[in-house]
Formats: sequence, structure tokens, C-alpha cells
Amino acid sequence: MSIYNNQFWSIEAVDKTALPLIQAEIDNKTKPPGSLGLLEPLARQLALCQWQGDIRPVYLTKPTMLVFAADHGIATHNISIAPQAVTHQMVLSFINGGAAINSFCASAGLTLQVIDCGVLEPISGSHDNFINSRIAAGTQDMSKQAAMTATEAELSLLQGAEVAKAAIEAGANILGFGEMGIGNTSAAAALSCLLTGIPLDELVGAGTGISEHQYIRKHALLQQTINRVTQSVGESPINAELAVQEAGGFEIAQIAGAMLATAQARKVILVDGFIVTSAALLALQIAPEIRDYMVFSHCSGEKGHRRVLEHLEATPLLDMGLRLGEGTGAALAMPLLKAAAAFYNDMATFDSAGVTL
Amino acid sequence: MSIYNNQFWSIEAVDKTALPLIQAEIDNKTKPPGSLGLLEPLARQLALCQWQGDIRPVYLTKPTMLVFAADHGIATHNISIAPQAVTHQMVLSFINGGAAINSFCASAGLTLQVIDCGVLEPISGSHDNFINSRIAAGTQDMSKQAAMTATEAELSLLQGAEVAKAAIEAGANILGFGEMGIGNTSAAAALSCLLTGIPLDELVGAGTGISEHQYIRKHALLQQTINRVTQSVGESPINAELAVQEAGGFEIAQIAGAMLATAQARKVILVDGFIVTSAALLALQIAPEIRDYMVFSHCSGEKGHRRVLEHLEATPLLDMGLRLGEGTGAALAMPLLKAAAAFYNDMATFDSAGVTL
Repeated sequence: MSIYNNQFWSIEAVDKTALPLIQAEIDNKTKPPGSLGLLEPLARQLALCQWQGDIRPVYLTKPTMLVFAADHGIATHNISIAPQAVTHQMVLSFINGGAAINSFCASAGLTLQVIDCGVLEPISGSHDNFINSRIAAGTQDMSKQAAMTATEAELSLLQGAEVAKAAIEAGANILGFGEMGIGNTSAAAALSCLLTGIPLDELVGAGTGISEHQYIRKHALLQQTINRVTQSVGESPINAELAVQEAGGFEIAQIAGAMLATAQARKVILVDGFIVTSAALLALQIAPEIRDYMVFSHCSGEKGHRRVLEHLEATPLLDMGLRLGEGTGAALAMPLLKAAAAFYNDMATFDSAGVTL
Repeated sequence: MSIYNNQFWSIEAVDKTALPLIQAEIDNKTKPPGSLGLLEPLARQLALCQWQGDIRPVYLTKPTMLVFAADHGIATHNISIAPQAVTHQMVLSFINGGAAINSFCASAGLTLQVIDCGVLEPISGSHDNFINSRIAAGTQDMSKQAAMTATEAELSLLQGAEVAKAAIEAGANILGFGEMGIGNTSAAAALSCLLTGIPLDELVGAGTGISEHQYIRKHALLQQTINRVTQSVGESPINAELAVQEAGGFEIAQIAGAMLATAQARKVILVDGFIVTSAALLALQIAPEIRDYMVFSHCSGEKGHRRVLEHLEATPLLDMGLRLGEGTGAALAMPLLKAAAAFYNDMATFDSAGVTL
């Protein structure tokens, strides 16, 4: 049975026959219908994901942010704002609690775990909240050859799934996904292009802030990558199995596996920015049923993200021009999920409140 | 000394000479410059509001939501989704904890206070978190005459200021502002039109969801109001003193007074939707210096709100299609302010983290 098929994952779509009951519950709250905007479909989605046959409160238990990190062969071409060594440095910063994602997780009450999926230099020692899930010391340069082998790709999906399962076993029923990897907007752009057929031009952006010169080089290398792959495969878009090998990253592939395991367990997936959304594309192609469990937290400032969200017909909760990654957008959106659960669980109904609206 | 002048309020602009130091503090955090999007100017603003001559942590103490309620003479024309009695019913719901704003305040850890500024039927008994600050039993019908007297307008500003001062004395250094009042999108539209000169057509919306028939009547009544006022005053836009008397609401005027007192105490003002923004327009015309203390929490689904925010060149944090009022958008945005403070206070610097970005 192929890992690139939902027969492997057995993800079940939510029970949409519950929708009228859940909608009635929402519409009976003391407010005009629809007046809570995006929070209403959000509450609906949470209730559907947790549906057990009757109306009951929605809970977010031990919300956990998983930040997957890896290095990328393409980054040797100096197409990022920072050298590759910064992936390792930032993983240490996550472990030591000094990064933006640490601040935001602390602020929102989220548990944070950092996962080394293939940073060039391994992290030494053992640390709280750190998981070693390495595949190799960075991917190959996708402008010249496949980023990873078939075995590495499969291992990535499986190991990512294990990370999510462990977090769920530890009590989380919602997982946010973040990433760190110098060069990974390039992997996300190539992967998104290969999976969706969206023109590369619409997907290549400035990352965290590269120069025009770097942008031109980045674009050329990505075009070279796409040309190489489409010439060898002979079609476009291509399937998830080929796309992840050709243009994936170890962190991106592990995120896709972790998302699949999350939906398998009927838990909620909180998608972060452009890179995590490319992992979502991968997971969606493997098991379209996963969509029911995905909440799109924000639209980032990275050019391709808005385009891919449009392709997915996804409405993000936040649009604040973030372009840092790490899972920061997902962490910032988590309080909105708590608020959606709060109004769904706690607001009075028209009858109980004596309101004649 | 006129209450419609900053000589009365003595609001001081923030010390902008501190800006380079604060910006350097933000830029020394381990992230590419600007990569936290709207959270960066937000952190800058919080730091400026709390500036005491050197870099120190930013704190949000006892964040408090003040929900001001009142009735409106114009509402007798049946131009709202609900009858006027719903203002009273919803105030009771706020007191009893069953409304959307209660859920969101509980979810975000905010203290909630409800203020009766002039609901038709007074609230009986005394209640925790309830403040009686009544001016009269609703305003007059502004389509026919001034909504309130000069004395009522002054009293509103002064009493609103007292409400804010009490919350600040109780420990709050950030106040969110919300409102309840059947018909108050009409007051907000007329007031915004009179204060800014923005054409009425761009300010009249569907409120929480009126019919086309009601919309036409609402628009005609508001046009009649504007015609009445501009013919009697002979100019447009008009000043705050006249505008609030002609087209204000008791809750809107008290919010303006409360905002002025908040800025006077150098505390942060969290602005909610269309109605609260019309109160902000009023406060801004009285004391432009207040702008430094205002955070615009969201852009609502009410048509005129986006237009007024554009007029103010304000960038709201959220844009989620909310159209409920009550302060719901402000409450939902509060965790973003906490996150901004968290990254400003807690993120490592490049030196301390050993990051070479």
C-alpha cells in the first residue's frame, strides 16, 4: 500500500450531516446570524472535527506548536538573507527560548516542540522540547538533481507522523505547524509550482528580505529546477510522490506526514505560512479528506502564499504581513480558535437570555 | 476653558525622540527587519506610550473592556435589525455573562465593565461590573432635531472620562472600548459624515443585517439629518462640539470622553468597530494628540468602517468581517498586543543568541 495514498492513512472526512445541527447551535446564539464573521465558520469547523453525534462543547486541549527544521541544498547558491549556519543557530535559539515563536507560544499558552529533520550540523546534547528526527544533513541541490531519494521521502512522512502522534498522545488535540530552514521558501515555491501548476513567477518571492540580485538568481535556479523536473517527468503538475522527492525539504515532508497523522487522529491542524502551506498541498494531494481538519492561520507577506491560498480557496484568519516563519502566524492565530470555542460553548441562546432580536 | 479643546484635557503626544532607540531595540531582535509585519509598529507604539526615558519592558496590566450602552431616538423609525428593547436586553446579557463579548473577554483574560449611558429603560438593581452613568433615556430623533443638548453632550464627555479614570485607578493600563445601542450605526454614520465630510453614501451600511427596505429608509433619514444640520450650521465638516450634539449618542460621547481621559493618563486605547471609531473621530478632533495612544483593532464588515479607517490612515490589526459590535473586535485583538509586548520584552538579540543573520 502506497504511503502516497489515503488507503495508507485512512483519514475520514468529517461528518457533514452534523452541519445543520451545529449551524443551528451557532444561529441560536444571541447575535445576528453571521455577525461574528470568520469566527463562525471556524467554530463550525472545530465542532465538526470534534463531532461525536450530539451538540457538546468544543475543547482545545494542550495546543502544541511543532517547529520542524532542516537545511536545503539549494541554499548553497546564496539566495537567502542568511547563511545556512543560521538554521542551526535558530534551532538552538528555539531550544533556548529566545526566538519570536518562543515569545508567541508563551504569550498564547502553547507548548512548543522543535524537531531537527535534517539540519546540516546536528544539535548536540538532549534538550527539553527538542526531538531528533533527522533524515540526512540537508537535501541535495534541487536545481541539479532530486532533493531527496524515494526512501528519504517515505521516511520523512513516517517520522513526521510519529512526531504528531507523540504530541497527540501527550494530550494535544490541536497542532500548529511551523518551520525553520534557510532556503525553504525556494523549496516551497518549487513544490507548490510542481503540485499545482501555478506559474513559478507567481510563487517566487523575497523570502525574509533578499536583494534584487539574489532574487534574480533565486528565480533562475527555481526555473532550472522546474525545467529539469518537467523534462524528466514529462508532465505538469506532477504527483506528490515525485514532487516531494524532486523539490521537497526534510522539514516540509515531515510536516506533511505530521499533518496526515493529525487528521488520521481527527485532530485540528493549524497551518502557518508559505512553507507550511506547501506541506499542506502535499498532504492534500495524498489525502484530500485532510482539508476538513485544516485551519489556515494567516496570509504572510511572502508573495506566493496569497496565491496558493487562493488556489486552495482558503480564507486565512490573519493578514498581518508576517514573513518570518517559525510558526509565528499560527501561534498568533491560536487565541482566535480559543475565542471561537468560547463563543460556541458559552454564549447564551435567545431563549435563555430573553433577547428578542 | 472649553471641554472641546485639548487645553482642557492636556493630552501630551508621545516622545518621538525615543523612536530611534525603540526601533534599534526591535531591530536587534533575532529576526529579519520588519518580518513581524504589523506587530512591529504595534510594539513600537506600546513602547512609545510607556516610554520613561530608557528601554524597559512593555506591560499590559489588567486589560479592561468598557462597553458603553445607550438608546437612540432615530431607532424609533425601525431601521435596525432589532427593536429598541434589545439594547436593554443585551445590557442584561452582558451583566449575566452570556454575550459574545463575555466569551471573548473570558477567553482573552480581560476584565469587562458595562456602562449604561442612557438605555431607554434603566437597569434595576446593582451588579458586579455594571456602572450607572446615565444621561437621559435615549437621545432625541436626530432626523428632526439635535440628538442631545449642549449640557448633555458635556456631561457625556465628563462622565465617560470618569469611567475610564476609575478603570485606570483600578490598575488597567490599556482600555478596550465597545458599545451597544440599537440604531447606533446610524449615529456613527451621521457623526462620521459631519466630522470628516466623507459622503454619506460611503458611510451608510447594513448594520447587523437590515433589509433593503430598511436600508433605504435609514439612508433617507440620515440624509435628512445631514441636510438639517448643514443647513442650520452652514458649513461641512463641522466641529466636534456641534457634531456630537446634533448626531451623537450618549454611549458614543461617553466613549470619546473615556478615550480622552485614557490618553490624558498616557494609557493605551484599543478601538473597536465603526461606532467606536466614530467616537475616536470625535476625540481626535478635540485633541489630535490622542492619536498616539490609539490602536485600531479591526476593520469590521460595516461598510463605513473601512472608509473611516482609510480617512484616518489607520491600519487595523484584524479584518475578519465582524459586524456585531460590543467590543468583540477589540477583545479578539488583545492577544496580538500581548504578543507584541512578548516579543519586544523577551526575544533574544543577535549578540545574546549567537545568530549571524
